[in-house]
Amino acid sequence: MALLGCGVVGTQVIRLMHEQAGDLAARIGAPLELAGVAVRRLGRKRDVAVGPELLTTDAEALVTRADVDIVIEVIGGIEPARSLIVAALSGGKSVVTANKALLAEDGASLYEAARQGGGDLYFEASVAGAIPLLRPLRESLAGDHVKRVLGIVNGTTNYILDKMDTTGASFTDALEEAQTLGYAEADPTADVEGFDAAAKAAILAGLAYHSRVTAAEVHREGITEITATDVASAKDMGYVIKLLAICARSEDGRSFGVRVHPAMIPRSHPLAGVREAYNAVFVEAESAGQLMFYGKGAGGAPTASAVLGDLVAVARNRLAGTRGPDESTYADLAVHPMGETVTRCHVALDVADKPGVLARVAELFAKHDVSIQTVRQEGRGDDAQLVIVTHRATDAALSATMEGLRELDIVRAVASVMRVEGDD
Amino acid sequence: MALLGCGVVGTQVIRLMHEQAGDLAARIGAPLELAGVAVRRLGRKRDVAVGPELLTTDAEALVTRADVDIVIEVIGGIEPARSLIVAALSGGKSVVTANKALLAEDGASLYEAARQGGGDLYFEASVAGAIPLLRPLRESLAGDHVKRVLGIVNGTTNYILDKMDTTGASFTDALEEAQTLGYAEADPTADVEGFDAAAKAAILAGLAYHSRVTAAEVHREGITEITATDVASAKDMGYVIKLLAICARSEDGRSFGVRVHPAMIPRSHPLAGVREAYNAVFVEAESAGQLMFYGKGAGGAPTASAVLGDLVAVARNRLAGTRGPDESTYADLAVHPMGETVTRCHVALDVADKPGVLARVAELFAKHDVSIQTVRQEGRGDDAQLVIVTHRATDAALSATMEGLRELDIVRAVASVMRVEGDD
Repeated sequence: MALLGCGVVGTQVIRLMHEQAGDLAARIGAPLELAGVAVRRLGRKRDVAVGPELLTTDAEALVTRADVDIVIEVIGGIEPARSLIVAALSGGKSVVTANKALLAEDGASLYEAARQGGGDLYFEASVAGAIPLLRPLRESLAGDHVKRVLGIVNGTTNYILDKMDTTGASFTDALEEAQTLGYAEADPTADVEGFDAAAKAAILAGLAYHSRVTAAEVHREGITEITATDVASAKDMGYVIKLLAICARSEDGRSFGVRVHPAMIPRSHPLAGVREAYNAVFVEAESAGQLMFYGKGAGGAPTASAVLGDLVAVARNRLAGTRGPDESTYADLAVHPMGETVTRCHVALDVADKPGVLARVAELFAKHDVSIQTVRQEGRGDDAQLVIVTHRATDAALSATMEGLRELDIVRAVASVMRVEGDD
Repeated sequence: MALLGCGVVGTQVIRLMHEQAGDLAARIGAPLELAGVAVRRLGRKRDVAVGPELLTTDAEALVTRADVDIVIEVIGGIEPARSLIVAALSGGKSVVTANKALLAEDGASLYEAARQGGGDLYFEASVAGAIPLLRPLRESLAGDHVKRVLGIVNGTTNYILDKMDTTGASFTDALEEAQTLGYAEADPTADVEGFDAAAKAAILAGLAYHSRVTAAEVHREGITEITATDVASAKDMGYVIKLLAICARSEDGRSFGVRVHPAMIPRSHPLAGVREAYNAVFVEAESAGQLMFYGKGAGGAPTASAVLGDLVAVARNRLAGTRGPDESTYADLAVHPMGETVTRCHVALDVADKPGVLARVAELFAKHDVSIQTVRQEGRGDDAQLVIVTHRATDAALSATMEGLRELDIVRAVASVMRVEGDD
């Protein structure tokens, strides 16, 4: 086998392959042999002992070598990862990858190359790191219908939101702490703007609904605008704010929504207790009911654990002359637009403190067919605030209501709007 | 395919096979056809529409029929299930079973028959019902080393302990409520004495440590002696009592322990929040770190979901002319006796309220090399009680200490002893 990339995950893969060589050979039925490691620079100091004769900067040559039958890709990003994986698969090799961005942008090409070449494409490490999640979705739930997936699939944003919740910190301060501790990168965009979670949501939705989904089809909102006040107000009401990846089938089962956005969930929900940089995915299936998978979503060793699990599976498949599960897109359901998604909202309005305000606000909600579950007035005079939680409605109706509120003369400002999930 | 048993699970399997026929065919690549259903009595009224021509009381004939290639066994118990499964496997058929008792007593014979016949033996539904757990252990963690498994794998006892914890009920009252609600059987022995959990623990340990384990090797204690006082006292200290199935590798990795007993766990532990009849299994692996799997551990539809997931897998394997993972016992580790297990204890002692009592008690602990973490005196005079929590020690040393305490003249009674888990 060959390894593409020797960074945080790659070095752990090499270390574990050495340390557990005997176990891996026993579990596979044959020893694993590392034929080469493609790196960008040969001279760099590495955290793991790897024979210099194994290192190469010529990844293209490595993935087509006759003595390589399995390729592990842990470079990340679209190119050159895509070309290398496609070349390997087209050449009949099996590929294990952790590359969520590539799978969510162009998984179809990879699957197609795997079918043509007759090898396997496995990618457990691409979503929620060490947590066995894709294999359960692809295989264990193959006899069930997934209704909904609610996941905390980005450790960085969970760390930030957890700090904001437990210490009252602002987003900026919590982000800075996450960066100091190595949980967030110097440029945190991919995490805090929800791009990373959106790629994972696309992969999860594709598997859950046996349809093809790309990251571009995922409605995406990040956490940069969440304030310490939003977090405190959620806390007061018994909620906690999490960045969720949500895949939900429509009532008639003919389409589904895929979205990533911050949401308030009740503190009693199993996902509410997911602290620090942990990940957890809550799956609701017709027969199985509610399931939850919890663990570390990132890091060298946890990700390497998932990679090696896949490596054992594809190696066994090769020895048996067979392939694992192929892409399953037979259902071919449509992704419905965000406006058709059914959700609930928590809204805080700065209002004029005079008689008739509530009536006018309530009238606006009614006009858009959005019914109100609770309303609470806080403060008086210039500090008067109405806090409203709606019943379920389409996101389009909720958005139209928010627009309407912004235009209402008695509303000085829409102080915050947050979707509410996980309590239905 | 053929179905053995048409009870709570069997009827759900038939219903879902009908309702999801199109999806199952698409996921497998060929339609499933139900060739026969073996039942004890033909005339009985059933909750599902099944053609009377499919019903038979001759299970032996059904499992060897030429037009049957997959057999689903949901009868339970040792015989006739074992003979039927062995006959099916020996005849080259694949078997999906939910039979934990049989797997934990004589899994080796089943695997052997599967190897000889060339078919598959799948049993996801045997442990923790709908929760995808065995496939992750067998496959996803195949590149990792499992250190410890801590599981709530019996819904009945979790329901009883949860009621005792939330309402202060006695064991007898909570059991009665569980029976009224259908969570506990009229004869609750298998659940409350830990037999059911012990069978599951044996299966989990075998998969986790790649060794052969039978239920007879599992140290087993039930929950019948837990009092409302024990539960309240645990609560006071920030703990909750759960019936745990625990598989733990020794420090040197050469042996492991398997046990089922009630234990106090901190309320902050992910397993502490598992309420009612839910199941959850916490897995600690060297590279993956801490993982948790949560969901419904029993019931017709959840169990049927796991059975159908396996059915899709074995049907795909047959079409591809291959087999799934075989028994993995290469590590062949020994099960060490309970005395060698390292754990902690919470002990409540009724003592004479006079000077020097603590010194004598502490001396006894020291004599057995058990160090004390906390000690607290409650009450005075005839009600004086010492509550002691130890540091980690072998179960043998802890047991010897308890024996010694019972013989100490200043100790009027050892009011309760409970192991403490999950906070190290």
